[in-house]
Amino acid sequence: MTVRRLSVYTRCLLQLEEDGVKTVSSQELADRFNLNSAQVRKDLAYFGEFGVRGIGYYVSGLKAELQKILGLDREWQVALVGFGNLGSALFHYKGFARQGFRIAAVFDDDPSKWSKSVEGVSILPLRELPREAKARNLQLAIVAVPAESAQTVIEKLAAAGIKAILNFAPGRIKVAKDARLKNVDLSIELETLSFYLAQGAR
Amino acid sequence: MTVRRLSVYTRCLLQLEEDGVKTVSSQELADRFNLNSAQVRKDLAYFGEFGVRGIGYYVSGLKAELQKILGLDREWQVALVGFGNLGSALFHYKGFARQGFRIAAVFDDDPSKWSKSVEGVSILPLRELPREAKARNLQLAIVAVPAESAQTVIEKLAAAGIKAILNFAPGRIKVAKDARLKNVDLSIELETLSFYLAQGAR
Repeated sequence: MTVRRLSVYTRCLLQLEEDGVKTVSSQELADRFNLNSAQVRKDLAYFGEFGVRGIGYYVSGLKAELQKILGLDREWQVALVGFGNLGSALFHYKGFARQGFRIAAVFDDDPSKWSKSVEGVSILPLRELPREAKARNLQLAIVAVPAESAQTVIEKLAAAGIKAILNFAPGRIKVAKDARLKNVDLSIELETLSFYLAQGAR
Repeated sequence: MTVRRLSVYTRCLLQLEEDGVKTVSSQELADRFNLNSAQVRKDLAYFGEFGVRGIGYYVSGLKAELQKILGLDREWQVALVGFGNLGSALFHYKGFARQGFRIAAVFDDDPSKWSKSVEGVSILPLRELPREAKARNLQLAIVAVPAESAQTVIEKLAAAGIKAILNFAPGRIKVAKDARLKNVDLSIELETLSFYLAQGAR
């Protein structure tokens, strides 16, 4: 099962919980959120103990179990590297904190930003990374630097013990075997829409 | 087949083409890009005519076919609504233009931005949307406004005939039946990483 689908189910269950729904069948879940019902059935079969024959799944129980699997039952301390337009937008993005991702340190090598702090978080030069990573128990990083700096930044993060990295910089990056790099490619999201328009135009 | 997987295959094939690779088997594609080989085999079976027994798929031919299906064989004119930090970052994001998505109009209701233009594109008030949508043949929109404005903006886009919308604003949005809304939730990307860390910690 892809991790992304677990995230999607968790969001659906959160929405059902907000709406006061107590139980849901895989079919209802699929119908309500436009998911593939065979896929939902197959995926949720792993979580059999939360399902009751003829009733479905307990919304809160299943949600809590999925959150635990996704590591959303705790708070993660996140480093943000790069505080330009994108970095700043990501810092203020509400969705991260809601899922337990707290941006606890911001790094940028532009000296004009070092005297500033945002919402109580100081902007520091990258050379402070090793010390801050330990002091603040940073385990995840978001990289929002220009393409030409990304490789160096990601190597420094890995050297500082931060091995789970979400990268917004384009281009190919090499990482050490024990690091986990996830590249965000925003044009993939637009392609779902151009696919739809291209199909409609036929 | 999910459209997202088509996008991923297209990127893999582009990379292979850059590296001068002429043919690839589904197994090689899976191994090289860490994909699920059974899934790749099944998906590519749809494109049988590009495969040759014992050799595999023609990289350029398959890539061109996938691009056509995804609507990437043409240029799309895109409206960007909201020119704050995120909007500005998205405007300068190189990945969109590379796939044929051209941001041809920018809208923001902050009057202090109206006199400005970015890379030759004027920033206009939202009331200009209906006229611009027609004049510039806008078919896709990217919404990067605060959560509280998103519903109104998306209704105005649909009314102006732009029915394929990529939305970065959080919260629930209702859309007309004939519109296609894709919500980007950046925390889903981080959850792949927290999943990995949570599993490792066990």
